[in-house]
Amino acid sequence: MKRDFIDTNDFTKEEILDIAELSLAIKRSIRAGYYPQFMKDMTLAMIFQQSSTRTRVSFETAMSQMGGHAQYLGPGMIQLGGHETIGDTGRVLSYLVDIVMARVIEHKTVVELAEACSVPVLNGMSDYNHPTQEIGDLCTILENLPRGKRLEDCKVVFVGDGTQVCASLGFLTTKLGMHFVHYGPRGHQLGEEHKRIMEENCRVSGGTFEVTDKRDSVRGADFIYTDVWYGLYENEMPKEERVRVFHDYQVNRELMELGNIGCKFMHCLPATRGEDVTDEVLDSDASLCWEEAGNRLTAMRGLLVYLTHDRKKPSGVVLAAAKEELDAFMEARIDKKKKSE
Amino acid sequence: MKRDFIDTNDFTKEEILDIAELSLAIKRSIRAGYYPQFMKDMTLAMIFQQSSTRTRVSFETAMSQMGGHAQYLGPGMIQLGGHETIGDTGRVLSYLVDIVMARVIEHKTVVELAEACSVPVLNGMSDYNHPTQEIGDLCTILENLPRGKRLEDCKVVFVGDGTQVCASLGFLTTKLGMHFVHYGPRGHQLGEEHKRIMEENCRVSGGTFEVTDKRDSVRGADFIYTDVWYGLYENEMPKEERVRVFHDYQVNRELMELGNIGCKFMHCLPATRGEDVTDEVLDSDASLCWEEAGNRLTAMRGLLVYLTHDRKKPSGVVLAAAKEELDAFMEARIDKKKKSE
Amino acid sequence: MKRDFIDTNDFTKEEILDIAELSLAIKRSIRAGYYPQFMKDMTLAMIFQQSSTRTRVSFETAMSQMGGHAQYLGPGMIQLGGHETIGDTGRVLSYLVDIVMARVIEHKTVVELAEACSVPVLNGMSDYNHPTQEIGDLCTILENLPRGKRLEDCKVVFVGDGTQVCASLGFLTTKLGMHFVHYGPRGHQLGEEHKRIMEENCRVSGGTFEVTDKRDSVRGADFIYTDVWYGLYENEMPKEERVRVFHDYQVNRELMELGNIGCKFMHCLPATRGEDVTDEVLDSDASLCWEEAGNRLTAMRGLLVYLTHDRKKPSGVVLAAAKEELDAFMEARIDKKKKSE
Repeated sequence: MKRDFIDTNDFTKEEILDIAELSLAIKRSIRAGYYPQFMKDMTLAMIFQQSSTRTRVSFETAMSQMGGHAQYLGPGMIQLGGHETIGDTGRVLSYLVDIVMARVIEHKTVVELAEACSVPVLNGMSDYNHPTQEIGDLCTILENLPRGKRLEDCKVVFVGDGTQVCASLGFLTTKLGMHFVHYGPRGHQLGEEHKRIMEENCRVSGGTFEVTDKRDSVRGADFIYTDVWYGLYENEMPKEERVRVFHDYQVNRELMELGNIGCKFMHCLPATRGEDVTDEVLDSDASLCWEEAGNRLTAMRGLLVYLTHDRKKPSGVVLAAAKEELDAFMEARIDKKKKSE
Repeated sequence: MKRDFIDTNDFTKEEILDIAELSLAIKRSIRAGYYPQFMKDMTLAMIFQQSSTRTRVSFETAMSQMGGHAQYLGPGMIQLGGHETIGDTGRVLSYLVDIVMARVIEHKTVVELAEACSVPVLNGMSDYNHPTQEIGDLCTILENLPRGKRLEDCKVVFVGDGTQVCASLGFLTTKLGMHFVHYGPRGHQLGEEHKRIMEENCRVSGGTFEVTDKRDSVRGADFIYTDVWYGLYENEMPKEERVRVFHDYQVNRELMELGNIGCKFMHCLPATRGEDVTDEVLDSDASLCWEEAGNRLTAMRGLLVYLTHDRKKPSGVVLAAAKEELDAFMEARIDKKKKSE
Repeated sequence: MKRDFIDTNDFTKEEILDIAELSLAIKRSIRAGYYPQFMKDMTLAMIFQQSSTRTRVSFETAMSQMGGHAQYLGPGMIQLGGHETIGDTGRVLSYLVDIVMARVIEHKTVVELAEACSVPVLNGMSDYNHPTQEIGDLCTILENLPRGKRLEDCKVVFVGDGTQVCASLGFLTTKLGMHFVHYGPRGHQLGEEHKRIMEENCRVSGGTFEVTDKRDSVRGADFIYTDVWYGLYENEMPKEERVRVFHDYQVNRELMELGNIGCKFMHCLPATRGEDVTDEVLDSDASLCWEEAGNRLTAMRGLLVYLTHDRKKPSGVVLAAAKEELDAFMEARIDKKKKSE
């Protein structure tokens, strides 16, 4: 049975931690100079309905470093849901590649694609969530745990607009038993469905969450996280309006000081300097955002290996027999011909 | 002498069968887990003047799986016939890559490109024909021959618009001595030039063909094949008009029942469900269209190997000498410098 | 310390010659069939703000042939300087790839990118210069030195518009102690800043240069070089106007005859046949432009190796230890799990 990676809520806490630890193990290995060839002979189709820097580059580098290949199928290059239904494209791709990732405009597109594909499908961000970002963020948090604390002791505060990154951070932290706050203005907070899922997560994990516009909720944060204010690419809020709405939610020195001593800053990037975060914070030693971006690559490697690792490997005898048969065919049918010409 | 793959009519029946059998031999090998590195060190330039799913993904996967690399040169990425003549671009590419494929709007473009290039050129579909589709279709037919029949015993009926896929199927089947029917409405049937070529093919091969709007011509089909009704991307027929014209040519249960018991359905895809074919037929066990799409990859691998297999391989001594010379240069000129810094 | 390749004026004459000789050494090696895997495990991000044939295909082929991988980040695929500052994109890319190249509209963009990146950055052409073209041209000149002459004895004449390719040729030749002429109409000649740099170069190298609209300056040329008349893509001169301005500067039989016996013709391509050069010259035996295009690939290989060659290579013990650790993790944490399922 193939397994997809559409939503971390489809996975147990233990599985999520396995993926993150696997990601970090491969990172250490590559740092040492050893590039494990886990994706050898495999091809990843990367479908992008929107442009992307981090997700695209990370997936492509991850495949190359581990011996595989990633194909970029950008906006307009294939017609997903145009002349062909998503289901039909998925069925066809399953014959042509080994694994598929898709950054989609509507979440239902990646769900439909995963249902149609007989190979694993990864969600490279939708309007609903951003689960590969979650794994990268978990890696970053694990590498930067406050001294003496376990994951379950940490408080993570997302500041600002309830984007899909905000929702994803809420899903991840509550799944892991951490303490999550979304501090954002009314009308831009996580909604009832998000809360229902986080509640269910906390019931299992012992975590907590809060969605609020009270500034006091930031106190005691170990990690303060934000995202841009302008919303989804397709439907940007004009600068004047977003500054009016989110003005109090800029991550600056004052806001950072509400967190614990040693509180870290995170951002999925791109950042709008001077809007969602000040230069001072973004470029400070408290800012993890650059290594967080680097951990997108870390996460992609772990995820790709996790979803394909149980592919059956042929035995040496099977390989030798296949080679012998093909060599014999070539000699009898193709090379002989060349000689006689 | 380099060899191009622009039109199956440039090849003998025996050569076409060699390419298909080679394709199937590599397919079996890879199914067993052995990926032959026939394209090692080689680069394929893929020029697309139109978007494409199957052709593009197939070529790129084929190159990767066999140790080579494919570069996607999509619409607007290079200017084929813009600031630079096609001939000049072809001459230049011959210095930079090992093999070229092009999906073109006008057939003469790929012909001109092949003339200019000193490396092999493959036609990835033009307004005239679709020869890589032909090889994939031949693989699919060979894998699904009706019990007790040889290729030469089979009847293949193309239903609907006389597209380049229709023409290609006519070329292929008559070349191989099969029995071909184009059942389509007047004004959308294969033309005089197509008939002349098929006639010539049949004269050599013993095959037969018929171009007709008589429904009875479908009787006894072993394979029923269709394509979309909307014509070339650049010049689409409006839905209302195409339904009026092609209405009687939908492949549905009734039409399939005119074929032999066990008659198979084929489609180059994408399909317009409910127009050129019903869901019932497309999703039935009689439908080969998914494995047919998978055999696009099968065909690309065979074609790439067939066209490049006679490249001279250097001897071990030559390789060792080249390595030694380069190592000596590096040590004397580049590494020494670094040390002294 | 990382080293970028933004401008040949940042390098000494000896370094420029090292890069060209390295490029030619790798070319000989690959001609013999030995593909050195210098770029193994490495990824190149190729940022293109404009379309490109030669630069893009050359970089991608160079990476593949030497065991690495190149990612094409074309116009609109990432937002360099859009939602994210160039500096931030550069910082992030440094975590995700090993080396970066950029073809930019404004020169300052590639300078800014190089400052932000902690990995090497190559300039794939800007509105100011085209330094990878320079290395390829140097390779072509070295392979075609007039009998009995050293580089320092050669006269190179650029005819026509003072494009960035013209400026680059001036920088290169004066750096190497050659004799450079820009023969072009007033208003389209190299400017004061160009002259200042070439003067400084000549002071060190013993070369000479002249910028003039006097036809006599072409006499004695060993190499005559031209470029298109229409200027930068973004700001094309209408055909009528450019023919009026550059009419006397077409490279044709008469102009070629002003050069030395055996004078060679060069062109960075694309050429506008019948405008900047006649078919007769472009297609003659005196024309080096095709092998010059081929030497774009030659240059890219040399440059990529030169800029990354001093990366620390792990010892066998370090590699073995990393492998062992990762294998142990997989067995304990990932494979065991699969078994118990």
